[in-house]
Amino acid sequence: MTRRRLRIGLIGSGFMGKAHAFGYATAARVFDLPFEPELSCLADVDEASAARAAAALGFARASADWRALVADPEIDVVNITAPNALHKEMALAAIAAGKHVYCEKPLAPLAADARAMAEAAEARGVKTQVGFNYLCNPMLGLARDMITAGELGEIRGYRGLHAEDYMADAAGPFSFRHEPACGGALADIGSHALATAEFLMGPEAGPITRVLGDCVTVIGERPDGQGGQRRVAVDDIGRAFLRFANGATGSIEANWIATGRKMAHDFEIYGSRGALAFSQERFNELHFYATEDRRGRQGFRRIEAGPDHPPYGLFCVAPGHQIGFNDLKAIEVAGFIEAVAGRRAEPFNFRDGLRIQTLVEAIQDSSRAGAWRDLP
Amino acid sequence: MTRRRLRIGLIGSGFMGKAHAFGYATAARVFDLPFEPELSCLADVDEASAARAAAALGFARASADWRALVADPEIDVVNITAPNALHKEMALAAIAAGKHVYCEKPLAPLAADARAMAEAAEARGVKTQVGFNYLCNPMLGLARDMITAGELGEIRGYRGLHAEDYMADAAGPFSFRHEPACGGALADIGSHALATAEFLMGPEAGPITRVLGDCVTVIGERPDGQGGQRRVAVDDIGRAFLRFANGATGSIEANWIATGRKMAHDFEIYGSRGALAFSQERFNELHFYATEDRRGRQGFRRIEAGPDHPPYGLFCVAPGHQIGFNDLKAIEVAGFIEAVAGRRAEPFNFRDGLRIQTLVEAIQDSSRAGAWRDLP
Amino acid sequence: MTRRRLRIGLIGSGFMGKAHAFGYATAARVFDLPFEPELSCLADVDEASAARAAAALGFARASADWRALVADPEIDVVNITAPNALHKEMALAAIAAGKHVYCEKPLAPLAADARAMAEAAEARGVKTQVGFNYLCNPMLGLARDMITAGELGEIRGYRGLHAEDYMADAAGPFSFRHEPACGGALADIGSHALATAEFLMGPEAGPITRVLGDCVTVIGERPDGQGGQRRVAVDDIGRAFLRFANGATGSIEANWIATGRKMAHDFEIYGSRGALAFSQERFNELHFYATEDRRGRQGFRRIEAGPDHPPYGLFCVAPGHQIGFNDLKAIEVAGFIEAVAGRRAEPFNFRDGLRIQTLVEAIQDSSRAGAWRDLP
Amino acid sequence: MTRRRLRIGLIGSGFMGKAHAFGYATAARVFDLPFEPELSCLADVDEASAARAAAALGFARASADWRALVADPEIDVVNITAPNALHKEMALAAIAAGKHVYCEKPLAPLAADARAMAEAAEARGVKTQVGFNYLCNPMLGLARDMITAGELGEIRGYRGLHAEDYMADAAGPFSFRHEPACGGALADIGSHALATAEFLMGPEAGPITRVLGDCVTVIGERPDGQGGQRRVAVDDIGRAFLRFANGATGSIEANWIATGRKMAHDFEIYGSRGALAFSQERFNELHFYATEDRRGRQGFRRIEAGPDHPPYGLFCVAPGHQIGFNDLKAIEVAGFIEAVAGRRAEPFNFRDGLRIQTLVEAIQDSSRAGAWRDLP
Repeated sequence: MTRRRLRIGLIGSGFMGKAHAFGYATAARVFDLPFEPELSCLADVDEASAARAAAALGFARASADWRALVADPEIDVVNITAPNALHKEMALAAIAAGKHVYCEKPLAPLAADARAMAEAAEARGVKTQVGFNYLCNPMLGLARDMITAGELGEIRGYRGLHAEDYMADAAGPFSFRHEPACGGALADIGSHALATAEFLMGPEAGPITRVLGDCVTVIGERPDGQGGQRRVAVDDIGRAFLRFANGATGSIEANWIATGRKMAHDFEIYGSRGALAFSQERFNELHFYATEDRRGRQGFRRIEAGPDHPPYGLFCVAPGHQIGFNDLKAIEVAGFIEAVAGRRAEPFNFRDGLRIQTLVEAIQDSSRAGAWRDLP
Repeated sequence: MTRRRLRIGLIGSGFMGKAHAFGYATAARVFDLPFEPELSCLADVDEASAARAAAALGFARASADWRALVADPEIDVVNITAPNALHKEMALAAIAAGKHVYCEKPLAPLAADARAMAEAAEARGVKTQVGFNYLCNPMLGLARDMITAGELGEIRGYRGLHAEDYMADAAGPFSFRHEPACGGALADIGSHALATAEFLMGPEAGPITRVLGDCVTVIGERPDGQGGQRRVAVDDIGRAFLRFANGATGSIEANWIATGRKMAHDFEIYGSRGALAFSQERFNELHFYATEDRRGRQGFRRIEAGPDHPPYGLFCVAPGHQIGFNDLKAIEVAGFIEAVAGRRAEPFNFRDGLRIQTLVEAIQDSSRAGAWRDLP
Repeated sequence: MTRRRLRIGLIGSGFMGKAHAFGYATAARVFDLPFEPELSCLADVDEASAARAAAALGFARASADWRALVADPEIDVVNITAPNALHKEMALAAIAAGKHVYCEKPLAPLAADARAMAEAAEARGVKTQVGFNYLCNPMLGLARDMITAGELGEIRGYRGLHAEDYMADAAGPFSFRHEPACGGALADIGSHALATAEFLMGPEAGPITRVLGDCVTVIGERPDGQGGQRRVAVDDIGRAFLRFANGATGSIEANWIATGRKMAHDFEIYGSRGALAFSQERFNELHFYATEDRRGRQGFRRIEAGPDHPPYGLFCVAPGHQIGFNDLKAIEVAGFIEAVAGRRAEPFNFRDGLRIQTLVEAIQDSSRAGAWRDLP
Repeated sequence: MTRRRLRIGLIGSGFMGKAHAFGYATAARVFDLPFEPELSCLADVDEASAARAAAALGFARASADWRALVADPEIDVVNITAPNALHKEMALAAIAAGKHVYCEKPLAPLAADARAMAEAAEARGVKTQVGFNYLCNPMLGLARDMITAGELGEIRGYRGLHAEDYMADAAGPFSFRHEPACGGALADIGSHALATAEFLMGPEAGPITRVLGDCVTVIGERPDGQGGQRRVAVDDIGRAFLRFANGATGSIEANWIATGRKMAHDFEIYGSRGALAFSQERFNELHFYATEDRRGRQGFRRIEAGPDHPPYGLFCVAPGHQIGFNDLKAIEVAGFIEAVAGRRAEPFNFRDGLRIQTLVEAIQDSSRAGAWRDLP
């Protein structure tokens, strides 16, 4: 009855740091986990920040030195939610110390770095995870299961979108997300659209094999915070046409200046026997059209999330009550803990994270060249 | 920095027991609470069940004797999620022991019992709470604030609905919810519709002053679990016309055989300057119509929950990401803990719970008489 | 191939007069009618108005004397779209002259008058029609067919609504619709809600047998157009609980001060095997939930109007293209012309119109008494 | 008061032939036209078909010889709804005979042919129209007006879609639409998406200047109607990235195998101050997001079509009642008649139709080359 503890070290305490902390707290209550996660240590940029965040988020200890955290023998898992540019160094150090590593997306700004990280983890034999939490939605699992089971028939077309408006204000200052190394909207949120596309289509249609990109910078300069303007080179909108291994085609759009859109991580999938439509703005619903429905009675049906769609039922026994964004994170956390225990494969490991980075770079490269690019 | 602990004793471990446990875990991480809640003891019908639930939900101890839990000096707050028929006895015992009490809804099957509970708590000076968690939705808070601020102008009409289909199958067995003492759909979910109506309308339109009820039993008998059928006398659908203190009128419907509806806790409110529409099926949205919008540009606008709608921002800094059902429970838990600390009034105490019971009974009585009934 | 002409005389040229003229023009093109309708004569309050309207709407002749039109041997059908208060006199004169009569709703302000009209028509053997055009929607026909065919199983609950906001502005002047004889929101638009309820439920659940009403005046006085205010006594909101012959229960609400609602002629129907939901705001859709759908795949499905839903296909061979309000009127016109030719029963004759008036008055009477009323 | 007649000759009596006939009938009643359209003659493939269609659609005469119709001095306007491959020959003959010509889309399978037609019409000085009826929707007019008036600020992104499923069944036979000369989904319905994109964006963002295409054949062969299979070479899905003159970027997708979609002629437009979203599946609505709305009250608002959106008010004086597909055609007809009378510029003439053909061919060419193409 007394489960082994899994001692968590968290680096960073911003939006995603909090989401990780919430995720562990919820996962520990909702799931029957093989380990009892223990929030052991939180590292942040300085002692005061770290101590404050540790207290607020429930970590036992605080540290201003992520290297100490990574080396700490009292830590089993290192969670990295620090700025993207630091992911590689932190992850490699943690891997070297034999820790399991759970890194926020994107795994690294460059595919080459992501590759080094994936290979290091595999060589060392530690478990890894990259935080693509939208994939943890029971309704995405349902969609994938339906596709894999053939409920849509032969898959013929895919259209994905990730649109938000957090960069729509041209008066918003130049931030780390506008650094060339960060990659722009395609890397930041197009990565979600790509991950979802391969998650859903993969088992049936195979991976993406070719891309044709269209990445554009719309707001060419932003306030530099010192009274001047600074040039922006990364894309505000990133689009791509896609080819899947089975010949199915599709497209995605990533747009962080999509005025009015707060979380449009949407898709529509057309098969020979049915179709699916989904919007993250109403992510407890999946819309399903079946050609086998009786004539005159056909239509997209709004399936509401419920206990028939695991692991929804662990959160709530009644359908229609809905899970939230932080619950998606808890599902992600639980999946990783189960993988650490060897109960299941890693849900989305560094190799998967590298894959997304590879796709992003292929699209960026295609866009620059104005020509199709094959994926490895 | 070390907060005082608030030691929680939970009675019951079903749907709502779990929701309470999840609520404490999340509230402790998300809110800056005056106390650190500690899941101290869980009581259930027998030792095995209690031990199993305590382990699963993170309680330190387990007990097969709720009376021992209630009397335990190491417990500060007693949470009651046992069957409705036991609420009164448990709550009175807890109050007598000087505990704060957090009881699931309905407070008691009879208003007279609820009154005894409210009066005992007030006499003893303990804090109380009844679990009307839908009221904790940031979008309901927004709606109430908008009404109170006059954004809708003079309030003229209200239409509330709580429709689910968990009793729609006539082959579903007779359960404790079909016992006459439980009161049927009106008491079970109409209580939510009534609580929401007074929550939203109260500050501006005043409380409900008159009701005209229509309670009907549709499925007149159900399997008794022993091969026979048992007669059902409680209502499957409960409707009421309403009068508010300011003269505004409205209606509510409670329906637990509403085939296809999973969580339609909906309302529509019409004022002289605007209107609101809401459905719990998409509870991170509030739809707002303003007559002052420019001509030709008017329409219901879909406001998505975000940091502008507290306490959403404590869960997530980005709008549109959505909170879930368990998060509503966490907000409820946090409100109660703050009330225990004296930081705020009790969000929904036993007196409020009594009010709902009084409304339910007035509607039932009105339905039997086929005539309007005044509220006290 | 040359069809007999059906010579139409229209009295009135306002909103509904136009809709009739459009209806004939469209019906003649869309349907294979037994007669060729001919817009023969239009009567209005004075010669200039009549001449102008006749030219605009395509009538061959104009008249300032409706009595002359009614007596004209060159007229076969009299269409009455004049103010409600005049319906009776006009209709009785037309019936006496042996004309078929197509009268806008409400048939008459008082059921007694409507009865006299229905009986006169039956005695004289002329065909009659009352303009309840929402019933002509292919999706309402579909709903009725589904209910009648048992696709919803046993019908258990009904909720109807007709909400608009054309009277929401308290500064809007007192008009003929505020005259006590006109009857208020319940008579004006609640009549639609009642007609739809009996149209859909009738074949399966039988007619409405009992009502409990709640009619309220919200805006108690309005500008009289002469600088003063005039008292309003008719209802702005009319609600009713309903009993159907088979024991099913329901409710309707009529509300002409429903700020933001332009055409919410909505319903939701719950059966033991399925449910239907509809909104006139999107009247080319019907939402259908079937309990027999596979587990985990259940949900309201949005059926879009198409050729599978007659007579949609006569308007457009492709689904999803949508018909409009005037097309509903054309279907109504076609149904009446077919009835005049003896091809089918009258879709909604004076006897049916009387029925609605009877329901309206029973609800008004019930509201005044605060008690249930049986229907004859 | 007696208007000059405009004598219409119609070639073809299928889906679009009917829509034209309905359009004239409705336009004549709804609009105050400078001419009274007269359905003079209908030509079809043989005498029996022509006679039958003429009777059904209300044409005075019938003909099996379109050349005779075109040459008939009693005809003022020639409406061409015959198969696409015949458009050019018919139109040139009509132009040569000095007739105004109203041709269904696509103007011609090849841009070169369309150019010859446009130039011939301009040289002869006759008025022309191509049937892009979706542009006639009052809500598209509203969208264009809002964009032009700056209500969206600087326009930054466009996403268009035209998805239907009329070709989704692989067992559906090879038809004239699968002939290489017809061009596939991009030409058939992508033409609508392109027309809408330039209609909306043109005044503010300028025309499309560059395209990158992706046209794919998914169902590679279809039953030839004689027991065999016939190879299909045209695209089932046609996509394009777009550049507008002002630098704004966008995309369109045309898809005629989009299972479940009946009429998804949709768009979303992002500007610096606002956004618009639209779906033809609910074409009486336009969704508008304004950044200037008060904080915490922002959201896409659902504007329902009404008299504030001309010419809706000519069809119906009350908002929310909705116009239908055939009404769009009536608006198109009215616009052309007004252009013939010199009251306004031609709404969408052969030069505009050529423009669409040019865009289609540029996208097809780009797709074959896998490279961007500049537009002239």
